[in-house]
Amino acid sequence: MNLYDLPTPTLILDRRRVRANTDEMRVRIHAHGVALRPHAKTAKSVDVARMAVGDGGNALAVSTLREADYFLNQGFTDLVYAVCITPDKLDVVAALVERGAELKIITDNLAVAEAISNHPGAHRVLIEIDCGEHRTGVVADSPSLNEMAVAVERSGRSKILGVLTHAGHSYATRTPDAAAVIAEAERVAAVTAGERLREAGFETPIISVGSTPTATHGVTFDGVTEVRPGVYVFQDMFQVGIGSCSINALALSVLASVIANNRDRGTLMLDAGGLALSKDRSTSNSDFDAGFGQIADLSGAILPGLRVNSVHQEHGEVLVEDPALFANLTVGTKVRVFPNHACMTAAAYEVYNVIDGGFEVVDQWERCNGW
Amino acid sequence: MNLYDLPTPTLILDRRRVRANTDEMRVRIHAHGVALRPHAKTAKSVDVARMAVGDGGNALAVSTLREADYFLNQGFTDLVYAVCITPDKLDVVAALVERGAELKIITDNLAVAEAISNHPGAHRVLIEIDCGEHRTGVVADSPSLNEMAVAVERSGRSKILGVLTHAGHSYATRTPDAAAVIAEAERVAAVTAGERLREAGFETPIISVGSTPTATHGVTFDGVTEVRPGVYVFQDMFQVGIGSCSINALALSVLASVIANNRDRGTLMLDAGGLALSKDRSTSNSDFDAGFGQIADLSGAILPGLRVNSVHQEHGEVLVEDPALFANLTVGTKVRVFPNHACMTAAAYEVYNVIDGGFEVVDQWERCNGW
Repeated sequence: MNLYDLPTPTLILDRRRVRANTDEMRVRIHAHGVALRPHAKTAKSVDVARMAVGDGGNALAVSTLREADYFLNQGFTDLVYAVCITPDKLDVVAALVERGAELKIITDNLAVAEAISNHPGAHRVLIEIDCGEHRTGVVADSPSLNEMAVAVERSGRSKILGVLTHAGHSYATRTPDAAAVIAEAERVAAVTAGERLREAGFETPIISVGSTPTATHGVTFDGVTEVRPGVYVFQDMFQVGIGSCSINALALSVLASVIANNRDRGTLMLDAGGLALSKDRSTSNSDFDAGFGQIADLSGAILPGLRVNSVHQEHGEVLVEDPALFANLTVGTKVRVFPNHACMTAAAYEVYNVIDGGFEVVDQWERCNGW
Repeated sequence: MNLYDLPTPTLILDRRRVRANTDEMRVRIHAHGVALRPHAKTAKSVDVARMAVGDGGNALAVSTLREADYFLNQGFTDLVYAVCITPDKLDVVAALVERGAELKIITDNLAVAEAISNHPGAHRVLIEIDCGEHRTGVVADSPSLNEMAVAVERSGRSKILGVLTHAGHSYATRTPDAAAVIAEAERVAAVTAGERLREAGFETPIISVGSTPTATHGVTFDGVTEVRPGVYVFQDMFQVGIGSCSINALALSVLASVIANNRDRGTLMLDAGGLALSKDRSTSNSDFDAGFGQIADLSGAILPGLRVNSVHQEHGEVLVEDPALFANLTVGTKVRVFPNHACMTAAAYEVYNVIDGGFEVVDQWERCNGW
C-alpha cells in the first residue's frame, strides 16, 4: 500500500519527521538537565508517545481522562492531567490511581482543593500557576497558593507535589528572542511559586512548565524539573509561522483528492473540508496565512501559493492564480495538506497512516479520541 | 442517568426538538408535493435519519461513502452521495451498489463522466449544477451539461438520472425573503438543467435541490422532485442568526463543566474547548456573534450574554460582565453550550446522549464519523 492507493481524505504521518522532532526536543531538554514530559494531547498515540519519551521513558501529560486511561493501559504510569480538575471527576481519577497510575491532577481553586481533600481518594496535586497567559492558574505570589496547598493536605490523604504552568501566550510571539522572554517568565513564575510552597513546608518535587515555543527557545530551565511541550511532535503551519520550526519538520498532513477543477472559476476543490482539516485559522495571526492548510505534492514538497482558501463540511476550495496548474491537478489527483494546527486536525481521524519519508504506508497507528 | 451525572464534555440531543424539526420540514416539503431527501451529514445517525424520513421513508443524501455504507447496513437503500465523485472511488461505489444500494453519484467534470462510463460498474449519475454558490457544478446553460450526460452513458452501463444543486449561498442571506430569492434561483437552475437534459433525450427522474434556508423559505418547488436540507434536523446558532429557526428549535448542545471561576480576571473556564465545540466561527458573519457557542443552563434556557469567547484545545473561556454570576457558576457547575454549527460540533463525538425535553438521558445514539 502506498499513498496513491489510500482512500481520501485520510491522515498521513511521517515517522521519520516525528523521530527527528522528538529526538531533537528530548536532547535539548535533557541537555538542560531537566526531564521531558511530552504532552500527549497532539498525537494521542502510544506509538508517538514512545518515540517522544525515548527508551525507558514513562512520563506524559494528558488533556483528557480518557487519554490517561488509554496510556495507563499501554504502560505509561507517570501521568499529569493538565486541565483543572472538577470534584465530580475525582472518582475516575481515583480509579485510575487504583489501577496503578501515578496520576497528578491540577487545580487553581480553593473549593476544589477542599473537595480533593475530602474525597476518599489519595490524590497527587499540582497547583496551577498563571505565568501570563491568564487562562487558568493563580499568580505565583497569590496568597491563595498556600491556602490551596494547606486545603489539599488537610485530610491527610492527598498530597501537594508542586506546581504547573503553561505559557500559552508564547503562541503570540514571532521570534526566538521573544519566545525566550516568555520562557523566562514561565520559568520564574513556576520556580517562584514552588519556592513559596517549599518555604511553607510542602515538598515540591514537580516544577512543571512547557509549551512548544518556550521549550524550543528557553535559555535556562534552572529550578524547573520538567518541560511539557506538545505540538512539537508533529509541528504545523502555525508553528512554522511563529518560528518554532522549519517547514521540513512538518510530520502530519491530510491526503486529499482533487474533486473539481474549474479553470473558468479559477478554483480547485479538494475532498478535504472543514471536518478533514478543522476550521482552525490560527495562521491568520501568524506571519503568513496558510488558509485552512498549505498544499503539497505527494512527496510533501510545498506547492507555492496553493492553500485551502475556504472550507465547507467536505469541500476545501483552492484559489489558483496560475492557469497552468490546472493541467497537473486534474480530478482524482492526490495532494497532501499541511494543517494549521495539528492537534485540531488529527482529532478528526481514528488512525494515522504512517510513512517513513517516502510513499509507502509502513504502519497504521491508532488514536485515542474523545472524552 | 440524567444530565447531572454525565461526565463532561459530552453531546446532548433533545429528541423532542429533533422530532419537531424533522416533522415540520417533512410536512412543509410534502405540502409542495415534493419528496424530502434529508442530508444525513449533520446527524450521521440512523435514529435521526429514521425520524427525518418518516414512516416508510428510505431516501437520504450522504456526505461520505462511509455514511453510504453505514446507512445501507441500516436498510436505507435510496442514497445520493452529494460530493463530486473521483474515478478511484468508483470501485467502492460499485461495491455498495452490488450490496443493494441505489446509490447516486454526482459529477461536474467531463473527464470524470468518461471515467464513469469506462468503469465496469453500472452507475447512477446526477450532473451537479451551480445555482450561484460557485462551489462545484456547471451552470444550467453550460454546453458541457449534455456532453457529460452523453459521456456517462456512452458505454451503456451507467445512466444519467438527472441533476443536483445546492444553494449554499443561502447561508449569506439574513431574511426569509432573501432566502426565498435564492431558493427560486436554486429551483430555476435545477429545473432548467433538467429540461435541457430531457430535450437531449435523457430521462431525468431526479431534480434535486436543497439547503436548510432554501428548503425553509422557498415559495415554490415546481419542477423539482426532491429537497435535501441537512442541518435543520438539529438547527444551530448560525441558523438562528440567519433566521432559519427560533432558538427553541436547537436540539444539539454540548454538556460542559465549569473548571475555573476567576472573579478577578472576569472569566469562567469550561472543559469544552476547540475540540469539544469545534473552531467554527460562522456566527461572526450572522446577525449576532455567539463566540464559539451560546451558554444555557441544564434545562436549555439561554444564559443571556454568556458565550464561549475563546477556545484552547480543552478550554473554553467565558467572559463574565456581571460579577453576580460567579456565585452561581462555581467549579463543577454544569452548563449546556449551543454550538454555532451543529455539523462540525457533533463530529467530535461518538454518541449522542438523548434527552426528551427534560434532564433524563433516555437513550444513546451512535454516529458514523470519519471517511
